[in-house]
Amino acid sequence: MAEYIESLQRLAEQFGRLQGVGRKSAMRMAFSVLEWSDEETEEFARTLVDAKQKIHLCPICQNMTDREICSVCSDPARDRSVVCVVTDVKTVFAMEKVREFRGTYHVLHGLISPINGITPEKLKIKELLERVGSGEVKEVIVATNPTVEGEATAMYLSKLLKPFEIRVTRLAYGIPVGADLEYADEITLQHALKGRRDF
Amino acid sequence: MAEYIESLQRLAEQFGRLQGVGRKSAMRMAFSVLEWSDEETEEFARTLVDAKQKIHLCPICQNMTDREICSVCSDPARDRSVVCVVTDVKTVFAMEKVREFRGTYHVLHGLISPINGITPEKLKIKELLERVGSGEVKEVIVATNPTVEGEATAMYLSKLLKPFEIRVTRLAYGIPVGADLEYADEITLQHALKGRRDF
Repeated sequence: MAEYIESLQRLAEQFGRLQGVGRKSAMRMAFSVLEWSDEETEEFARTLVDAKQKIHLCPICQNMTDREICSVCSDPARDRSVVCVVTDVKTVFAMEKVREFRGTYHVLHGLISPINGITPEKLKIKELLERVGSGEVKEVIVATNPTVEGEATAMYLSKLLKPFEIRVTRLAYGIPVGADLEYADEITLQHALKGRRDF
Repeated sequence: MAEYIESLQRLAEQFGRLQGVGRKSAMRMAFSVLEWSDEETEEFARTLVDAKQKIHLCPICQNMTDREICSVCSDPARDRSVVCVVTDVKTVFAMEKVREFRGTYHVLHGLISPINGITPEKLKIKELLERVGSGEVKEVIVATNPTVEGEATAMYLSKLLKPFEIRVTRLAYGIPVGADLEYADEITLQHALKGRRDF
């Protein structure tokens, strides 16, 4: 029934366009903004436009950045000879949280999915081949999700990378730490068995 | 680990200031904006500032509106002699959804709460008394929540309104429709018993 306050309704609609925000949450957020001061609201608006204008893709790894070259690619301590290929920017964030990986990334921005019209040309695969072709890369770790599309993309990449005679690896699959074997799915168990190790 | 994309981090912080939005949701929303076009982002920013600038309180009922007088107060079909006093704007929305009430509203913008420093002067009580004093109002329905503060505010208002010799009523309390008696709280049951009706 917010229809009778048009500007509020329109604001709620904008919030509703955000991923994972339903109608009720969108309206709550719109109300929330009305409790802010004019200055706070204007700052929010500026930050929105500012983020959109400043953030672009790193010309090397295709990750999002607001610098010329992203912070990983421009960090001299990172190993440029190891490139971890990921589906999207969120995976880079997840990997960086672990603080284990000291190589660099390459973001595909999607997975090959002919059904959804996503052909290899729509992904940042050409840019990956250019990087590998420059001779600096010694290993490519393909870290796509273990889904049908993730596996298909990984297979496609491994074939493309074969002529370069570099190491191409995948992340290890198995039972997640802390999980109950009883609830593990068959494919994961299969991978866990295949990848078993000696004590 | 979004710290290394400053403008994204700042955008997520802005989303995080909205009521009911946690850190993870805020970051997801910020990512979501990056998938929009420049035009869409600018429209969002404009809508924000626009809503904030246009929405103000209706000079009669103190409800939020982007017109001079709100749509309820300016509707000739609504009964100006009945005023429903509510705590906040959200209650007006809830009441309007029912489409049962044909009177007008008065929004207090809070409840009396000395502990939180909310004294009667901070609420729109003076404006209510002015409306009642003008002679047009014949009944005031006090529809504050049945909480300690809601009841205290209702009592306070009923005393203030006594000299005007108009009808002052409260909403009926009782078992909510569809609820299980087993789980009803004592106070609600008490009200339900007190307000019992003959078949």
